Amino acid sequence: MENSNSSIEGNNLRVRKLELSDKSKGFLELLRQLTVCDSVSDKEFEDRFKEISMYGDDHVICVIEDEISGKIIASGSVFIEKKFIRKCGKVGHIEDVVVDAGSRGMQLGKKIVGFLADHARSMGCYKVILDCSDGNKVFYEKCGFKKKEIQMVKYFV
Amino acid sequence: MENSNSSIEGNNLRVRKLELSDKSKGFLELLRQLTVCDSVSDKEFEDRFKEISMYGDDHVICVIEDEISGKIIASGSVFIEKKFIRKCGKVGHIEDVVVDAGSRGMQLGKKIVGFLADHARSMGCYKVILDCSDGNKVFYEKCGFKKKEIQMVKYFV
Repeated sequence: MENSNSSIEGNNLRVRKLELSDKSKGFLELLRQLTVCDSVSDKEFEDRFKEISMYGDDHVICVIEDEISGKIIASGSVFIEKKFIRKCGKVGHIEDVVVDAGSRGMQLGKKIVGFLADHARSMGCYKVILDCSDGNKVFYEKCGFKKKEIQMVKYFV
Repeated sequence: MENSNSSIEGNNLRVRKLELSDKSKGFLELLRQLTVCDSVSDKEFEDRFKEISMYGDDHVICVIEDEISGKIIASGSVFIEKKFIRKCGKVGHIEDVVVDAGSRGMQLGKKIVGFLADHARSMGCYKVILDCSDGNKVFYEKCGFKKKEIQMVKYFV
């Protein structure tokens, strides 16, 4: 039996922006591999999709679809923060990078992070930042990142 | 001679949203105590102010003004990121918290961070996050935060 990955290795695994129809292609199931991601109704999904879309290029969620299975196998997001420091500079914030457990080892994570960083750069950001576990430090170093500060969190729920 | 701080200690040091006129009250000079913050023209400032204002409650910059000197002595910002995880949850990102060097020891930082965290909570965020140096960890712990992950950065310029 053919390796399930080989079916997509030959394809040009294109990174594209999230589409509304990706809900039915396993987008939420993919995010569930990252953290808690409860099911939402089609209406809730569409409302949130529209809210994010209103930001245009200031908030982009990208995905990679396995065109054979029709499933979303990688995703990530970036939003552009507008500041006053650094001559009214901009900073890209990368969030929610995830690659399907069955599709690892194909550099999909690197593709996603590269797409998001390129987007931030094209939007005029002077830097792009993200938070990750110590365990993912080496991966992001391979993507050209360096450790800088520490992340602090306050939970409300 | 009276201590310069005592003039404002008696006042109710109110946290309020940034106003366009704060440029002439030393807002950029205050940010310069945080990081590189080159001068910008009134037009550039106004354009950026309007861009951020378009986000309404999704991107709030707050300040504390010393009403005696008419100077901005503390500031911070928070923007609300809309996600699909956690049942289309929201996360508040706190950035650029700074207190004037001559106005420290009056809990102004705590007031600013409290205002921003309260805003994120009122907007329905399930958590609020920020990045800081190891040296500021204890301050943020006093504000109710805990260390979670590490911050990675990629500079474009």
